[in-house]
Amino acid sequence: MSSPVLSPETFETVVVAGVGLIGGSVALGLRERMLSRHIIGLDASAGALEEALALGVIDEARTAPGEWLRSADLVVLAVPVKVLTSLARSLAPYLAPGALITDVGSVKTGIAAEFEALGVRAFVPGHPMTGSERGGVANASAGLLENAVWVLTPTERTPLTALSRMRRLVEQLGAAPVVMPPDAHDKLVATVSHLPYLASLALTHMVARDERLSLLAAGGFRDLTRVASGDPRMSRDMVVENKVALREALHSFSRQLAHLADTLDDPEELLLAASEGKRTRDNLPVVKRSLLPPKYDLVVAVPDKPNQIGAITRILGEASINIKDIEVLAIREHGGAIRLGLEEAGDVDRAAALLRQEGYATRNRG
Amino acid sequence: MSSPVLSPETFETVVVAGVGLIGGSVALGLRERMLSRHIIGLDASAGALEEALALGVIDEARTAPGEWLRSADLVVLAVPVKVLTSLARSLAPYLAPGALITDVGSVKTGIAAEFEALGVRAFVPGHPMTGSERGGVANASAGLLENAVWVLTPTERTPLTALSRMRRLVEQLGAAPVVMPPDAHDKLVATVSHLPYLASLALTHMVARDERLSLLAAGGFRDLTRVASGDPRMSRDMVVENKVALREALHSFSRQLAHLADTLDDPEELLLAASEGKRTRDNLPVVKRSLLPPKYDLVVAVPDKPNQIGAITRILGEASINIKDIEVLAIREHGGAIRLGLEEAGDVDRAAALLRQEGYATRNRG
Repeated sequence: MSSPVLSPETFETVVVAGVGLIGGSVALGLRERMLSRHIIGLDASAGALEEALALGVIDEARTAPGEWLRSADLVVLAVPVKVLTSLARSLAPYLAPGALITDVGSVKTGIAAEFEALGVRAFVPGHPMTGSERGGVANASAGLLENAVWVLTPTERTPLTALSRMRRLVEQLGAAPVVMPPDAHDKLVATVSHLPYLASLALTHMVARDERLSLLAAGGFRDLTRVASGDPRMSRDMVVENKVALREALHSFSRQLAHLADTLDDPEELLLAASEGKRTRDNLPVVKRSLLPPKYDLVVAVPDKPNQIGAITRILGEASINIKDIEVLAIREHGGAIRLGLEEAGDVDRAAALLRQEGYATRNRG
Repeated sequence: MSSPVLSPETFETVVVAGVGLIGGSVALGLRERMLSRHIIGLDASAGALEEALALGVIDEARTAPGEWLRSADLVVLAVPVKVLTSLARSLAPYLAPGALITDVGSVKTGIAAEFEALGVRAFVPGHPMTGSERGGVANASAGLLENAVWVLTPTERTPLTALSRMRRLVEQLGAAPVVMPPDAHDKLVATVSHLPYLASLALTHMVARDERLSLLAAGGFRDLTRVASGDPRMSRDMVVENKVALREALHSFSRQLAHLADTLDDPEELLLAASEGKRTRDNLPVVKRSLLPPKYDLVVAVPDKPNQIGAITRILGEASINIKDIEVLAIREHGGAIRLGLEEAGDVDRAAALLRQEGYATRNRG
């Protein structure tokens, strides 16, 4: 039995209020999947609008709300959480009753209550769990939303028809809708998103106090503090908006850490904890769903000459060896290394032989 | 004035005791830079030795210490910290007085004291700050050591000549030597390495207690918990060995977190803290030294057909456009996207035009 295939709902006029990384990505997703006819960008920044127009992300630009909003059948609020409620208030008078309204803010209780107070019924609060260190519409892409979990947080008054339209839209954009109440969402993201940010920030502050530490910080530390490298203002607004839930998460985190500190005297217990942590982490959907490492890897050392990537792929292309994945492992002064992900085990040996013939050093990987 | 160029010291017979990720990488580094004539792998595991021989990492395999060790002029102990002192004891009787001895353990006070007690003078404790989620000799590479900080921790009794030989060896392997006493090292790595591990582990434990959390964990959480995905036993041994310094680091971390929790009520202060964190993190040597994002990026959408990487690089190769970097952004059921890093701004426009001619969709990136 297959589930019924719902035909996608298409929108005549979409308004994306806030043309940044996420708003731009929603616009591109709608466009690439042909879900909309006309996309209007609304933004206080003329520069952002110009860029969005130039990149073909939007069709029309507006700097202020007005009567023109009545033609919209889909309105996506994609501004930072701090200005979300004031944007909601400024748009509300112009929204058509049949329009589907949503937002992409990272904290949901406040905006859900705001739209209820404004009497906008067809509002479905949302939060696509995706992002990038590099913000702005220039980094937007439809792919950013693909395979992302997109939380929808209806209140008790959200019409189920609006929820169902929104769920379908999320699926059409290639994301996975997950539905829960706003306060449940806010508690969960406090733990998986806002607490990690504060922990990461605390680690960077320890390093800021002793320069020798920054010298010894290696790859693990770099990964762990990546979230501290995001836009400070947006990060700050996000955690402040959710501070009640975040404080609870911090208490829970402190208890976990204290427990782990105790197990330093009980190595058997700590080993169990370490194994459980690895199992949990390796089974995270975001880890398992992410690009799987190809089974057949070949690492090629490349000299510091122009267009080595082109030369290597040409050699393999001529031999009809399909490159499934490619990664530049390192670019150094005296050359670097490239990892090739190949389709079959036999490809690795063939590719290695061909590349060696041409003077490249190669190494197989597990 | 240029500093005098020291000719590299070459070694006749090198013993790598423990042929895993790091031991194997040291062996490969010595080999690729022609710093050794003959490399003997010593390991309790016959399987690891076989693999190392098959991969060409070592020339000869030994499963137990013995008189044969007297011929070694460089001995590298590259076993997990937990078995380091017992290995030191079993090797000590056979070490030639002129041999340079070092180790790569992640905690230094214990092993430094052990070799002093054993009366081995030419021992220079070391710790290359590098690694990989994937362990084992199969993942070893000379490149793993390149540009890595390699801490050397002489005691007051370490001969300066041995230190100077070791420093030169580290440089020859492409790494950056940093010299400090063993206890200073242990305190610093407690903060930049062992504390982050425990924090990461604590976060995974919070997620293990609520499945909804794992669903909402996104890229930031994945990055933050990557270190929890390492080998549980090695991670456990590392933190237990350094538990005194680690407990101090934990206290300091708790204070930083508590301070940040307070600033949730003082958004201006928190913004300063967030900005300072970003600045510190973005200026970490490990961040700045790592592969710089090329200035001129072009993203190409690729359909789900064989050898798209080859086709794209061929098109650019024929137009003599040099590809400096390439990254597979996503592989999905219906195709994916590839980011190309190009040398010049003009290249992006030319490449985009050529690729569009061939039916590819492209997008420029900041």
